[in-house]
Amino acid sequence: MGNSYGTLFKIHTFGESHGPAIGVVIDGCPAGLPIDETFIQSELTRRKPGQSKITTQRKENDTFKILSGVFDGKSTGTPIAIEIENEDQRSKDYSHLENTFRPSHADYTYEIKYGTRDHRGGGRSSARETAARVAAGAIAKMILGQHGVSCHAFVSQVGDIKAPHYTSLDLSKTEDNIVRCPDAVTAEKMIAMIDQVRLDRDTIGGVITGVIKNSPVGLGEPVFDKLHAELGKAMLSINAVKGFEYGSGFDGITLRGSQHNDEFYADGERIRTRTNHSGGVQGGISNGEDIYFNVAFKPVATIMQDQHTVDKDGNEAIVSGKGRHDPCVVPRAVPIVEAMAALVMVDFLLRAKANKVW
Amino acid sequence: MGNSYGTLFKIHTFGESHGPAIGVVIDGCPAGLPIDETFIQSELTRRKPGQSKITTQRKENDTFKILSGVFDGKSTGTPIAIEIENEDQRSKDYSHLENTFRPSHADYTYEIKYGTRDHRGGGRSSARETAARVAAGAIAKMILGQHGVSCHAFVSQVGDIKAPHYTSLDLSKTEDNIVRCPDAVTAEKMIAMIDQVRLDRDTIGGVITGVIKNSPVGLGEPVFDKLHAELGKAMLSINAVKGFEYGSGFDGITLRGSQHNDEFYADGERIRTRTNHSGGVQGGISNGEDIYFNVAFKPVATIMQDQHTVDKDGNEAIVSGKGRHDPCVVPRAVPIVEAMAALVMVDFLLRAKANKVW
Amino acid sequence: MGNSYGTLFKIHTFGESHGPAIGVVIDGCPAGLPIDETFIQSELTRRKPGQSKITTQRKENDTFKILSGVFDGKSTGTPIAIEIENEDQRSKDYSHLENTFRPSHADYTYEIKYGTRDHRGGGRSSARETAARVAAGAIAKMILGQHGVSCHAFVSQVGDIKAPHYTSLDLSKTEDNIVRCPDAVTAEKMIAMIDQVRLDRDTIGGVITGVIKNSPVGLGEPVFDKLHAELGKAMLSINAVKGFEYGSGFDGITLRGSQHNDEFYADGERIRTRTNHSGGVQGGISNGEDIYFNVAFKPVATIMQDQHTVDKDGNEAIVSGKGRHDPCVVPRAVPIVEAMAALVMVDFLLRAKANKVW
Amino acid sequence: MGNSYGTLFKIHTFGESHGPAIGVVIDGCPAGLPIDETFIQSELTRRKPGQSKITTQRKENDTFKILSGVFDGKSTGTPIAIEIENEDQRSKDYSHLENTFRPSHADYTYEIKYGTRDHRGGGRSSARETAARVAAGAIAKMILGQHGVSCHAFVSQVGDIKAPHYTSLDLSKTEDNIVRCPDAVTAEKMIAMIDQVRLDRDTIGGVITGVIKNSPVGLGEPVFDKLHAELGKAMLSINAVKGFEYGSGFDGITLRGSQHNDEFYADGERIRTRTNHSGGVQGGISNGEDIYFNVAFKPVATIMQDQHTVDKDGNEAIVSGKGRHDPCVVPRAVPIVEAMAALVMVDFLLRAKANKVW
Repeated sequence: MGNSYGTLFKIHTFGESHGPAIGVVIDGCPAGLPIDETFIQSELTRRKPGQSKITTQRKENDTFKILSGVFDGKSTGTPIAIEIENEDQRSKDYSHLENTFRPSHADYTYEIKYGTRDHRGGGRSSARETAARVAAGAIAKMILGQHGVSCHAFVSQVGDIKAPHYTSLDLSKTEDNIVRCPDAVTAEKMIAMIDQVRLDRDTIGGVITGVIKNSPVGLGEPVFDKLHAELGKAMLSINAVKGFEYGSGFDGITLRGSQHNDEFYADGERIRTRTNHSGGVQGGISNGEDIYFNVAFKPVATIMQDQHTVDKDGNEAIVSGKGRHDPCVVPRAVPIVEAMAALVMVDFLLRAKANKVW
Repeated sequence: MGNSYGTLFKIHTFGESHGPAIGVVIDGCPAGLPIDETFIQSELTRRKPGQSKITTQRKENDTFKILSGVFDGKSTGTPIAIEIENEDQRSKDYSHLENTFRPSHADYTYEIKYGTRDHRGGGRSSARETAARVAAGAIAKMILGQHGVSCHAFVSQVGDIKAPHYTSLDLSKTEDNIVRCPDAVTAEKMIAMIDQVRLDRDTIGGVITGVIKNSPVGLGEPVFDKLHAELGKAMLSINAVKGFEYGSGFDGITLRGSQHNDEFYADGERIRTRTNHSGGVQGGISNGEDIYFNVAFKPVATIMQDQHTVDKDGNEAIVSGKGRHDPCVVPRAVPIVEAMAALVMVDFLLRAKANKVW
Repeated sequence: MGNSYGTLFKIHTFGESHGPAIGVVIDGCPAGLPIDETFIQSELTRRKPGQSKITTQRKENDTFKILSGVFDGKSTGTPIAIEIENEDQRSKDYSHLENTFRPSHADYTYEIKYGTRDHRGGGRSSARETAARVAAGAIAKMILGQHGVSCHAFVSQVGDIKAPHYTSLDLSKTEDNIVRCPDAVTAEKMIAMIDQVRLDRDTIGGVITGVIKNSPVGLGEPVFDKLHAELGKAMLSINAVKGFEYGSGFDGITLRGSQHNDEFYADGERIRTRTNHSGGVQGGISNGEDIYFNVAFKPVATIMQDQHTVDKDGNEAIVSGKGRHDPCVVPRAVPIVEAMAALVMVDFLLRAKANKVW
Repeated sequence: MGNSYGTLFKIHTFGESHGPAIGVVIDGCPAGLPIDETFIQSELTRRKPGQSKITTQRKENDTFKILSGVFDGKSTGTPIAIEIENEDQRSKDYSHLENTFRPSHADYTYEIKYGTRDHRGGGRSSARETAARVAAGAIAKMILGQHGVSCHAFVSQVGDIKAPHYTSLDLSKTEDNIVRCPDAVTAEKMIAMIDQVRLDRDTIGGVITGVIKNSPVGLGEPVFDKLHAELGKAMLSINAVKGFEYGSGFDGITLRGSQHNDEFYADGERIRTRTNHSGGVQGGISNGEDIYFNVAFKPVATIMQDQHTVDKDGNEAIVSGKGRHDPCVVPRAVPIVEAMAALVMVDFLLRAKANKVW
């Protein structure tokens, strides 16, 4: 349980970090969608390890194979299964962890929950699982593209270094640097900080900001499946995420209603709001303005330092990172945030088709 | 769609603010649970309008009727339907809003999504719907009580007035004052601020902190249905919520891994962590420590001031609150946060029963 | 669990035979549908007890109240809750059954499953629950009506008395007699048989044939959610049903492929089949021909005769029907079969909206 | 949509007849289950084509690969992905069908539903998909085995040749002959009939009887998810199935209640019924007796004879089977029926864990 996401556009992911393969089955992709395999690969490449000096040096090509659901270059309406083989499995790096619980990892909780676990590289709890989401998200983006909707994300904070508000940035520059912050000056500082943290054999947290542009009005369902509630769940389901806010978010707390409310005005045929503290969502439903949100990531749990812990029998033990790990997770998490946003939006797009009788 | 919550302990809510009744059908409540109707009523009373000078003066008794699923004082395993009549319906208060969109309300988005809406008091988008959640949450709490688990919430911030960290508070004092902050000194300041805001015919935001004590280890499902992801969705589905964080949350961003990691130690038979930046959840699964989180609420959208907006035809219009509204939503939202937390926990408790072969 | 049906057009039923009320919450009804309350009542009246000499004499008016989801005579897109009070509750008729298991009823299985049960009139396992389905089905029929689709059912067999094949009948005559068989001659024989069975203080089984006309091509989903598989589940979920077949059904077994295959031909613009052994469904998807199926009902379990059984402690006991019961269930089950068929069709109609990219 | 089955033990299948591979992702398999790969293979081998003279001569080894969810020979509680490569793809056999609709196949309905289709070998609508179900069913059987529950199926009818009632047969002899009928004399006649049909370049229908032994009391959920309703859906979802009945089934129609009712008696500690017209299910819930049911299969649609049909443009056309096909589907469908029965039972077994508070 828990390995599926979506109501009409459903994804089912599988796979462990050091098993034969990971992958995803997408059920509910509408028929007739041209499938751009080059784009899927480019998205996977944005997430893959070993892409720059500030990411883990584990080498995975993350090449994928479509097993079903595509015929003559188009989706057929049947499940699209995508498989990504695990190539660079240095499982012996993990043999010392078979009986020991790494601090702030999922080792202990999996052990108690299941009575057993694949300890190699975190097994199912590894962020490697997110490659499957990125592949599925690429297909979701293709559908959104047909409707003119686009999902963007970028690194807006590393440690205490913050980028300006998204409305003053050119989001097309996100891929111009390895930290994926569209503000060149901030990016340089972020890279320097991550480099320093790496040299310190430590890790650091960060924030990714997501922006969804050109959403139709009316996406999201009332009450429990509000658009921002699903976005929140989707983002919080990404490894290392500790918080989610949209629109004014936590900063909205100190505002008064008279400051916070977004007044409506008519912009030609279209009804718009003068401000956007609502973050593009009112009553859980998109209002056509930009949907924007922040996702907080904790510092990566694996550090290259000795830490105190215990083993299965409760005996004291020392662990230290031996594998190849990221000093800061946010640069590689940008495509994951975009993928999850796209999955949420496509699902609501399809659900909205059933809103009215005609 | 969107009016159900839960996987095994499912709730289906219904009802509009000014219709005949609201209510909830609970499907999946295990059989044999003693149903304490007095407790359900006391929970509803904590949420009901008109309970103090800092809440709306709308008068609803919020008395409920159980229509099914309980026999001889115990749950039978069949659906428990609970109905709460709407009594104090001054629908004419809203007749001026039939064609006008209130700023930062759901009027516009519902109109476009459905092509029609019940404009009286927000209809389905009214926070009145949360009474149904509180009734269901009361039953969830009864189940959790049988397992020793308790769900607490309190007001930890109003505007810029903050209470100390929960670990230094006595949560049993939450109900000692009308703002529901267990720290008496802070509570007084909060009440004064809300009073002032009310006099200003304005509204203000706030934060509710939730704490779940004594959770078993192993609740939550990997990948998409992580415990904190479901908690996040549940909280973000409450009206006026703009953000969610758990454990170190957004503050964890600036920490280093060496500071943030929670080292394990053996406390007799039990394995525990020395710190709890993880907020009781690791890899999406409870580790037995306190689960704690913050929920950010925006200032209430209805203010007693003139605001610019447009009507259905895009003509400029002025709206001003005429009904009876809360100057700050957080005091009444405390039982709602607890209810949603309880619903999340019960659902994972039942799901965990299927984790192992034996 | 188990009290919900549907994927996009979802119904959640609740209520026991002798509790305060039964009812249904419909989530996913599209907005803008004119709600004809008179039609809902007429459907309920077709199912209600005491309608003729061949049905139980229990008196229930089965009047209903809509609690939510309808405004100004139209559906709003939010949940439609419908409540039907239980009026004629002679619960004392059942006091002798508190500890005794009636043969071929659900008494024993509920007792073991839940460790407790509402023994009055079968509680949740009573066919009274189907009134909620009929109310929901009435709304489903209204949606189908907007698309020109109609769902018909009639009694095609009572004991060994069979009506001719549906293609030779005028289905508009179904309501012309109390047994709901459109063939007057057969109907008379059926009524006589049921009368005799009643005098014998016994019960008898029967068959209801369902016919769905004017279905669009393309409803039903591949693999597990085939149109006929959902129809089968829906029908088998009705109390007393023992079998389901569609198209050629069990009779198709002895045919050869060369006899059974339905050849295609062009009927103007439309592609049709010359025969319809497929029953309007090919590969689990509607092909535009009539969808037809048979539903087998066993004889009602409650008979007015002494039967041997045991009590909770395994002691031998004698039970005899004392309440007011149907000698044959099929006449009153006709609107239930239609309702379930309509619920299946509406759900697939909405699901089909997401089949193609455009 | 429609490619998943189950509530807690969920399977997601994928793959087309002539694509690279088919497979299944199983989500919700409890942890700690010893996975017997030899057994999975033996089940697949029972279903595979080319196994005897009365089945299609298409050669597929149907060897499988487990991609995830198993570690050190045991299930880990995470998704188990199983892949089966397609080997013997003679896609050119199908090139003549690209634009033509085969009678009583899914060609036409897929074309209209999706606007496109993989025409090779039926694509997703091919019975090849059931190999994935058999693999998943093998794992379900392993879980049931731990609880002493067993699922059996056998061919009880081919054309008009019927085997005796299951209670007079030794089900352990089912695999003793190629038609999978445990009665040797009947089996011989069935084989002769299938041989004759094959020589006639035609096909014939049949019945498979399923028997589930040693089910615990209390499996199945009230109202919509009755045990027999799910069994019915599961069976009707298998290619070529036209009908389902359990217990007395369609024969129960002509019985009277006094004949049909199953009286209870105490068999030592256990409460049992003297007869079993209920087919082991009362009120939708297992009562501990044998669960038995019949599944009707139509004659295979592909015949080696010319048939009239139309092409996409409505032009008349002639098609004739050119591939390698089964003259009768039931011998190979026996393991499929068992697999679906096992999937239903495991799902209810896990769901039942949440029935009571303790």
